[in-house]
Amino acid sequence: MTNDKNRVIIFDTTLRDGEQSPGCSMTLNEKLRVAEALEHLGVDVIEAGFAIASNGDFDAISQISQLLKNTSVCSLSRASFKDIDRAAEALKKAVRPRIHTFISTSPLHMEHKLQMTPEEVIGRIHDSVSYARNLCDDVEWSCEDGTRTEEDFLYRSIEVAIKAGATTINVPDTVGYTTPDEYEIMMRKIIENVPNSDKAIFSTHCHNDLGLAVANSIAAVQGGARQVECTINGIGERAGNAALEEIIMAFRTRQDALPYHTNIVTENITKTSRLVSSVTGLEVQHNKAIVGANAFAHESGIHQDGMLKNAETYEIMTPESVGLKKSELVMGKHSGRHAFKEKLKDLGYDLGDNEFMSAFTRFKDLADVKKTLYDDDIIAIVDEDRRDNEHMKLESWSFICDSWQPSSATFGLLVDGENLTVSSKGNGPVDASFKALRTLTDGEPHLELYQVHAVTRGTDAQAEVTVRLEENGKTVNGHGAHVDTLVASAKAYVNALNKLKVKRAKTAPEALTL
Amino acid sequence: MTNDKNRVIIFDTTLRDGEQSPGCSMTLNEKLRVAEALEHLGVDVIEAGFAIASNGDFDAISQISQLLKNTSVCSLSRASFKDIDRAAEALKKAVRPRIHTFISTSPLHMEHKLQMTPEEVIGRIHDSVSYARNLCDDVEWSCEDGTRTEEDFLYRSIEVAIKAGATTINVPDTVGYTTPDEYEIMMRKIIENVPNSDKAIFSTHCHNDLGLAVANSIAAVQGGARQVECTINGIGERAGNAALEEIIMAFRTRQDALPYHTNIVTENITKTSRLVSSVTGLEVQHNKAIVGANAFAHESGIHQDGMLKNAETYEIMTPESVGLKKSELVMGKHSGRHAFKEKLKDLGYDLGDNEFMSAFTRFKDLADVKKTLYDDDIIAIVDEDRRDNEHMKLESWSFICDSWQPSSATFGLLVDGENLTVSSKGNGPVDASFKALRTLTDGEPHLELYQVHAVTRGTDAQAEVTVRLEENGKTVNGHGAHVDTLVASAKAYVNALNKLKVKRAKTAPEALTL
Repeated sequence: MTNDKNRVIIFDTTLRDGEQSPGCSMTLNEKLRVAEALEHLGVDVIEAGFAIASNGDFDAISQISQLLKNTSVCSLSRASFKDIDRAAEALKKAVRPRIHTFISTSPLHMEHKLQMTPEEVIGRIHDSVSYARNLCDDVEWSCEDGTRTEEDFLYRSIEVAIKAGATTINVPDTVGYTTPDEYEIMMRKIIENVPNSDKAIFSTHCHNDLGLAVANSIAAVQGGARQVECTINGIGERAGNAALEEIIMAFRTRQDALPYHTNIVTENITKTSRLVSSVTGLEVQHNKAIVGANAFAHESGIHQDGMLKNAETYEIMTPESVGLKKSELVMGKHSGRHAFKEKLKDLGYDLGDNEFMSAFTRFKDLADVKKTLYDDDIIAIVDEDRRDNEHMKLESWSFICDSWQPSSATFGLLVDGENLTVSSKGNGPVDASFKALRTLTDGEPHLELYQVHAVTRGTDAQAEVTVRLEENGKTVNGHGAHVDTLVASAKAYVNALNKLKVKRAKTAPEALTL
Repeated sequence: MTNDKNRVIIFDTTLRDGEQSPGCSMTLNEKLRVAEALEHLGVDVIEAGFAIASNGDFDAISQISQLLKNTSVCSLSRASFKDIDRAAEALKKAVRPRIHTFISTSPLHMEHKLQMTPEEVIGRIHDSVSYARNLCDDVEWSCEDGTRTEEDFLYRSIEVAIKAGATTINVPDTVGYTTPDEYEIMMRKIIENVPNSDKAIFSTHCHNDLGLAVANSIAAVQGGARQVECTINGIGERAGNAALEEIIMAFRTRQDALPYHTNIVTENITKTSRLVSSVTGLEVQHNKAIVGANAFAHESGIHQDGMLKNAETYEIMTPESVGLKKSELVMGKHSGRHAFKEKLKDLGYDLGDNEFMSAFTRFKDLADVKKTLYDDDIIAIVDEDRRDNEHMKLESWSFICDSWQPSSATFGLLVDGENLTVSSKGNGPVDASFKALRTLTDGEPHLELYQVHAVTRGTDAQAEVTVRLEENGKTVNGHGAHVDTLVASAKAYVNALNKLKVKRAKTAPEALTL
């Protein structure tokens, strides 16, 4: 993509490895929004899913391929012709398609997972990569559990993959096991020892089980890797993947020691982080680097004093460099249609006429009950609005709750155009609500997570609720926002039921990871 | 403490640097519980506060000094006699007291923060360390902003500190700026170049602004440091400090590459993490390494398949090694007093008779409305009980909320023994509640954070609510637990008001950090 020897390609796998985190599954619309945001952020490659795993993954890859104008779109596939065919089909309309195929190379994985001999694995690498290369010019090959692979076998596997046509070689630390110095040396030795290593770009894919994913990724780059696989907010299997935002800001802040550059527009980091956190329901902890609520806050008196004298005494990056703005008073009940449209554009939303009018109506309703509206309130309105085009929709509610009797909840709903009323008693109004709403489904969903946070400050803030339901191993996150926490909770539950209905119709998921 | 050359001292600063995170302030009782848990965890040194910063800090250090039997207790102090005197006084009853004094040594900090010349700083190091050493045998000295200090001046400062009697030399990466290889080399060169470096133990203190705190701490140990300063869950200023649990599990899991050992009982990690998260209100994100809810979870089909064949294919640590147990059904309405007492002991609680009876009554009440009680339910009961010995207490409640009128909330309270009723309307019952309860104070608290999570699974789970209030720069976290989210919210708000009252009475905080 560039001849500059210190240019690092950013490969984002939020939509594949990230989406595999428990409860992180996204709808097609959510995936499209994230893909768009990632393109604006400037990532080079988006791993959009694993085409053969489910029809949902296939559709997502296929639609993202049509949507994106510059970014490479990639599908994962095992080392089988069927997988690779499916990946190629999903990527048909991509401007820059990439097929990413992988197989395990560690003794443990070859024996226990693949039940194949090393020679069989070598044969499979050759066959799968050649096959993929016939379908697509851009082929990435990964040796799963690479950091626990024997040195000689690793070199041999990579040599075969390059000879078969792989243009990117990824050496994942699948189980989050390696350390920075170890991984840096490993990368350097691979590049030195593998014949024709100059014909491929080497890539790092780190997991954060020991808290070292970011440091390991940077060390690999120091060792010669020129592609980094990472996710927004570091989401992913178990403790997640390397966090894109941390790697990027380390490069930017420490150009003297880490003279690498990427195509990332750092000012879009905060916005993208919030979007991913909102659609997955995985909140970022307050003390998370770069994108946590406290990342740029200073509590102690002396720090504040130092800050006043010279910001650099305690600040190595500015909040502006990651696009963090003070939450501003943006609008109130007197703001008009034009101002609202401008604000939406500013926030990165491009709504059609109907969607715009519906959002504007909601905005006016909210402005009636809430004095000051912040950016995050506007975002919640649009998100909420998008959720409402669903099979079941909440129309009215009534709760009774006091200290001398069980609580009760009653809801009026529109289910596929028909009016329905459900009601139940329970331990508190949330319990009563969920019991009442559960009667709307024949399935047996279990509540796995119930989370509330305030969208903006103040007691009249909108509440944003996440409800995670699990049914037969499938999990969905429902979201709801409203100034009334109880209503937000009910909306989130209904949203989750709607998602579960879509998910039930799909074939069984068969995800894979690196 | 040991002659073994690979023994690393664990210095926990959860109660000092951790407590300085926005909104993380703890009450005296909470600090005592955390200190006790840290002793059980096996940390070597606890930094219990900054004695001169406030009377609250002084009292906490003093009471923790009396409470702990083995662990060293430490107070921070600036490089002034008055600070050091106050630290020594707070530590009077500690079995192993340590005074930790510091001054900035980087050009930026000396010029802008201290407004002192380098020579003045050198003089101050000599004077402060000698003075502290006359009061205490165990003296730690830190060069604030050490990683941005000029090499020669750094060596000279450290030489002076050792000569004046410092037994531990800490070189903090105050702004979270360094990288692993840089920091490892720095540590190695300090030890090689400073005369008499063998007379002190070298220490690392890393901040996580670029996501590298854990990797930097480990690199420093590889470079010769033998003390690591860290916090539970990595809490601390901005993006926090190095997370204790990640460093410890990296040592344990990678003994082949990192042959260091500590006194930490890893099986107590999960318990301690949950306690800190509960008292600070700082939730750990799901994909946080070691202690996040997903850290040991596997979503993808192939992973689960691999896991069934051989756990090691994807698991480098067992959940048991960090004390993570499957949440078990522990008790129900038929469980008796003895079983409850045993369970409490098992969970690490040692309650007096009155406290036990009160907790048991609550347990019976909860068992009446909730079918199955998990460990976390029991913990919530005890915590809730401890919160109730307060100036204001919630006695009864009533909420009206439906879709055709504004919500209203009415509460009966006991305020210093007197019955009071407050009531308000609002946007939803939580808004109405907070408006009603706000009339109980003359102050002007602002709601900074409102957060709800379920203690255990299922729709009848108890809700645990955190409410953060801010008033004139002082922030407090209130907590409340109840099966009814609305009641839990009201309790959390009342708890926050109670804490704010205590805090108002204190002198202005004047915290400091490294």
